[in-house]
Amino acid sequence: MLSAKDFEAAARDKLDPVYADFIAGGARDEITVRANEAAFGRLRLLPRMLRGGGVKDLDTTVLGSRARLPILLSPTAFHKLVDPEGELATARAAAVAGAILIVSMASTTAVGEIADAARAAVDGADPVPLWFQLYIQPDREITKALVRRATDAGCTALVITVDSPVLGASERNRRNGFHDLPPGLRCENLVDLRDGERGHVRQIAMSPELSWQHIDSLRSITSLPILLKGVLHPEDARLAVRHGIDGLLLSNHGGRQLDTVPATLELLPEIAAAVAGRIPIVLDGGVRRGTDVVKALALGARAVGIGRPVMWALAVGGEKGVLRLLELLREELEDTLALCGVTGPQELTPGLVRSAWSGPLFGGAAL
Amino acid sequence: MLSAKDFEAAARDKLDPVYADFIAGGARDEITVRANEAAFGRLRLLPRMLRGGGVKDLDTTVLGSRARLPILLSPTAFHKLVDPEGELATARAAAVAGAILIVSMASTTAVGEIADAARAAVDGADPVPLWFQLYIQPDREITKALVRRATDAGCTALVITVDSPVLGASERNRRNGFHDLPPGLRCENLVDLRDGERGHVRQIAMSPELSWQHIDSLRSITSLPILLKGVLHPEDARLAVRHGIDGLLLSNHGGRQLDTVPATLELLPEIAAAVAGRIPIVLDGGVRRGTDVVKALALGARAVGIGRPVMWALAVGGEKGVLRLLELLREELEDTLALCGVTGPQELTPGLVRSAWSGPLFGGAAL
Amino acid sequence: MLSAKDFEAAARDKLDPVYADFIAGGARDEITVRANEAAFGRLRLLPRMLRGGGVKDLDTTVLGSRARLPILLSPTAFHKLVDPEGELATARAAAVAGAILIVSMASTTAVGEIADAARAAVDGADPVPLWFQLYIQPDREITKALVRRATDAGCTALVITVDSPVLGASERNRRNGFHDLPPGLRCENLVDLRDGERGHVRQIAMSPELSWQHIDSLRSITSLPILLKGVLHPEDARLAVRHGIDGLLLSNHGGRQLDTVPATLELLPEIAAAVAGRIPIVLDGGVRRGTDVVKALALGARAVGIGRPVMWALAVGGEKGVLRLLELLREELEDTLALCGVTGPQELTPGLVRSAWSGPLFGGAAL
Amino acid sequence: MLSAKDFEAAARDKLDPVYADFIAGGARDEITVRANEAAFGRLRLLPRMLRGGGVKDLDTTVLGSRARLPILLSPTAFHKLVDPEGELATARAAAVAGAILIVSMASTTAVGEIADAARAAVDGADPVPLWFQLYIQPDREITKALVRRATDAGCTALVITVDSPVLGASERNRRNGFHDLPPGLRCENLVDLRDGERGHVRQIAMSPELSWQHIDSLRSITSLPILLKGVLHPEDARLAVRHGIDGLLLSNHGGRQLDTVPATLELLPEIAAAVAGRIPIVLDGGVRRGTDVVKALALGARAVGIGRPVMWALAVGGEKGVLRLLELLREELEDTLALCGVTGPQELTPGLVRSAWSGPLFGGAAL
Repeated sequence: MLSAKDFEAAARDKLDPVYADFIAGGARDEITVRANEAAFGRLRLLPRMLRGGGVKDLDTTVLGSRARLPILLSPTAFHKLVDPEGELATARAAAVAGAILIVSMASTTAVGEIADAARAAVDGADPVPLWFQLYIQPDREITKALVRRATDAGCTALVITVDSPVLGASERNRRNGFHDLPPGLRCENLVDLRDGERGHVRQIAMSPELSWQHIDSLRSITSLPILLKGVLHPEDARLAVRHGIDGLLLSNHGGRQLDTVPATLELLPEIAAAVAGRIPIVLDGGVRRGTDVVKALALGARAVGIGRPVMWALAVGGEKGVLRLLELLREELEDTLALCGVTGPQELTPGLVRSAWSGPLFGGAAL
Repeated sequence: MLSAKDFEAAARDKLDPVYADFIAGGARDEITVRANEAAFGRLRLLPRMLRGGGVKDLDTTVLGSRARLPILLSPTAFHKLVDPEGELATARAAAVAGAILIVSMASTTAVGEIADAARAAVDGADPVPLWFQLYIQPDREITKALVRRATDAGCTALVITVDSPVLGASERNRRNGFHDLPPGLRCENLVDLRDGERGHVRQIAMSPELSWQHIDSLRSITSLPILLKGVLHPEDARLAVRHGIDGLLLSNHGGRQLDTVPATLELLPEIAAAVAGRIPIVLDGGVRRGTDVVKALALGARAVGIGRPVMWALAVGGEKGVLRLLELLREELEDTLALCGVTGPQELTPGLVRSAWSGPLFGGAAL
Repeated sequence: MLSAKDFEAAARDKLDPVYADFIAGGARDEITVRANEAAFGRLRLLPRMLRGGGVKDLDTTVLGSRARLPILLSPTAFHKLVDPEGELATARAAAVAGAILIVSMASTTAVGEIADAARAAVDGADPVPLWFQLYIQPDREITKALVRRATDAGCTALVITVDSPVLGASERNRRNGFHDLPPGLRCENLVDLRDGERGHVRQIAMSPELSWQHIDSLRSITSLPILLKGVLHPEDARLAVRHGIDGLLLSNHGGRQLDTVPATLELLPEIAAAVAGRIPIVLDGGVRRGTDVVKALALGARAVGIGRPVMWALAVGGEKGVLRLLELLREELEDTLALCGVTGPQELTPGLVRSAWSGPLFGGAAL
Repeated sequence: MLSAKDFEAAARDKLDPVYADFIAGGARDEITVRANEAAFGRLRLLPRMLRGGGVKDLDTTVLGSRARLPILLSPTAFHKLVDPEGELATARAAAVAGAILIVSMASTTAVGEIADAARAAVDGADPVPLWFQLYIQPDREITKALVRRATDAGCTALVITVDSPVLGASERNRRNGFHDLPPGLRCENLVDLRDGERGHVRQIAMSPELSWQHIDSLRSITSLPILLKGVLHPEDARLAVRHGIDGLLLSNHGGRQLDTVPATLELLPEIAAAVAGRIPIVLDGGVRRGTDVVKALALGARAVGIGRPVMWALAVGGEKGVLRLLELLREELEDTLALCGVTGPQELTPGLVRSAWSGPLFGGAAL
């Protein structure tokens, strides 16, 4: 296991193909799935030499949450599908690595248990950076209950997914007949959300009625920082700022919602211009290499998220697999920063990045 | 069958390869055939979030013909080649789905019978949207007789194909020796077109002499709305408006006439600018996905047409196959609209569409 | 045999691979060989409709030579390598088709015999359009003798190849050990060029010393129109006009001389602008289709040349093969003109041609 | 062996795959490795005709070192890995060909012995052009000792590699477990660098602390011309001029350090503009053909370097292999110059080079 892609290859060998397809797949023709990764390959780094600094550290703070590297674990569902320990394993690895973990509303372990495992993994020594992702539910009480659970678990930010008025169509899942979790697994955060319920698991509702009013309403019931996940249009980024949103997770849901939306990296410069530094941006989609991280950070992201690689690593090696993945990415990131001639993420600027084939002879923009 | 492409694969397995080639093939090197589909893959959708609408309905009116979705069945020849029920099956499916069917002059069932079947399929409950495609014939009386038949059948618009001064050369057909319909099949609309004829089937004449005068002349013999099918140059689109044409079917004949013409989607913005909203545009060529429909509508089409997918679906499942295809496309379209944050086709604007690799770093146009 | 490419496939099956490689191959990595054909695929035709003309005829006059189509046979060496009749077969086919044949200095039949065969093929009925290609030789008397032979044979223009100060390196030939003609074949135009010689075959000398002075000097010894073959730089095209050259054969030697020069089609607009209509341009390189011919003519060529396809057709079917090839191209050209809505080559204008992916959304130039 | 690529294919057949991977491989996904070669394929040469010159000679002087061709041997490590004679064989071939050899600090033969072999190969007749590449070592005495050894050996320039604050990560080497030289081989220049040491081989230290101060400091301990190898950013090129550097070796380390940096050819026009002729530029990265050499020289390089091809040729044929490679490249270069219509490298100008697909119709810059 020398790179994120190695984990993918190994996991595909090991996993039930139905589950591997669930992880790898995206909406319809998966044009956006491929575009996410391809976008990084179309950018070039133009490093500086002889700067004499050496990389200091990768410590990153996003909305008050302190992490030891600018790579967070984007929310992904159903970790127990690929490993018996599931989210507990993921959370321990993230805690040891000092990475922010965004717990998915659709986790197969309750957020409270995840938080306990994360704290235990570091012997309670550090504040463990944990965020919680949720879909606002049409029933306001349910949403409130979810926010309460996340808050009680010690989560320090809420990530609201806004790109899912309906569920994206994975034709892989349909072909494979994969519609339900296997017996024994369930979305533990959705159990007994109303008083007096016993063992009742709610379905996650995706509602086309969701609007900015719901966002404003959520603001009134929590003091946690709120990030929106899935905003792609610069106009919506500006609206987010106006509605007092604290941060953006620039994501196209890994290409799993609307096919043929642009790669997130393509949109980053425009989104960064739209928010103009007023709120931090985290980008996910196609991040596989230390050079990918540096490109996103140089173009305006405060941090990046990884999704599928975590699932592959979890499938391959459980907690150790995820930890190894995070160590590899950390090593790649440190190398890349050193080779770029910067001492840390904060020194990265757009001037270090350019499009491939962009010199005077190749028709692209100059430096 | 989860997508239009599934029908193609299944139909190719099932059909005589000579007929499959007849359907799939195009002119010469089939550069335009491929370009049509590829064009959609080069565009991206930039959806809006949190609009709170939900998709209302897909009802679309084109030139007075009301349909329940903005996807019509472009004219294709010889449906009995792939299904014993032929155009009757197609027409029933279209009627049930509420889609406009453009009956081909080269149908293997008479337009009157097609119309009867369509009406019967919905128990006469709805007005069934049916149009008729024809090539203007050098013999004016023949053209008149054809128009009369279409009118008598209840067709509510005429689609005049203007891109065929000569027949496009399919080298697949030549290689396969496919020149004539098999015994028992004939172009039923071309039977006994003159008084006193008995069982005489005329050949469709393609004439390089065809000119705007013939179009003007046609206008004098019918009060039905007239669309031109095959106009590709913006200057010709302007001429169409000046000649009182009611609509354009922006089509390159599925790449079956002149090879190396642009994909219709490439031309749409210019054609839309040329007609400036004075007449509606329907686009066909390469539409396979709900996202394709949304892209064309956002760039100025009132509706889109599908050609080959209907033939594949008919070959695979007859009436049920075509109905399933239309249901799938309807479902995809509804999903796409919801994921774009619009309540219906009428809200689609060019701002939702952009070229791939078009952000500031990728040399393309900004929003 | 339905297209030029069919002949290539059939000829490769039939020929000794060493000879097939000699024909197909180009310099070094053959980047220009591929670029020539690819260039046509990157252009699109934007046809006009309803022009009511019909194609009149393809008659074309270039520098006083009248042909029945704007496609000439570019000079290619060693026709007897692929057919026992060699250039005689080619010449008969060209004469019957009414196409200008440019006899190669390196023909394996003497130009006089070729001319006789061409005249006999049409019973002397028509003036047979025949041109002669030569490399200016360092020994001025040799050049004079060659010009005399061509003139005596009735050639009506001289084509001077100027792109060969040294011989282009075909690594295919080197790998195959193909350096000499097989026993029995020789360059018949190079036999006994000096008084008193008997059966002496000279070598074609390629000289880096060749300059505009040699061209001026040639002008003083012949009254035939002179075309330069191989000028690629617009500045050289301007010099050609200033030196009284009568026409250009815009050619990169089929990619056989300097590898990585541009496709000739790429250069045509600039070369056409440089000569500004003062002298005619013939283009060769990659022409395989009627649409290719139309693109070149629309962008400023008076006619196009075909090279390798003639060799493939000759290998496949001798005289009949070449005639069939010319008939196919004539048919394709007529179809393309009809489908473009023009009555003949003279109506073709740059406005009919555009780059692929060039509409407003695709970043390219508009109409 | 007809081209540089032939040597690669033959060497891969012959070598232990672990060593072949060591040579062929690059950092991470090897995007830059591929980009280097691809960049040349994206440029076109636009030759002039009828210039009547003929190629005079290829003699080239760089920073006082005279060579018989503008192609030098870039520093590569461990020649004994592929040939028992190692650097001695390489040096003899370079001396016979009259090419500048840049001895690598990591050579498996001491620089003094290499110089002796080179001189012996030409019987001491010519001054043998030899340069020495080194990484500045944190221990200043070690650096001094290395400079002294190179100077004593007769090297006439120092090439300081500045792109390696850390070692680039070759995942091929990691997968193959290739970390150390096999028994019997060692970096001979690193033996006994301090007084009193006996058989002690130092490790090459790569230091992120390296800065312009270290460069200035090196300047004070040697009067040899100093080139920097690895500067990629135009701003750093300007700094190099300001710090009195004598020349640049524009190199991305063959894609072995930071992956996804641009191809060196892409950067050449900007680097050439930055130094504005004040110091010479040598370019390496992807040079495989005479046309590649001409493109780089036309765009502002004084000479080019080749790396991997030397290793392949050495593996295939030892000294004779390297000599044959240099002869082939010389022959290709002479041909290319002749075909471009120039008499030597000094006549090459940017006007001879353009991007592929760059004419008016293809959206690129005109001449």
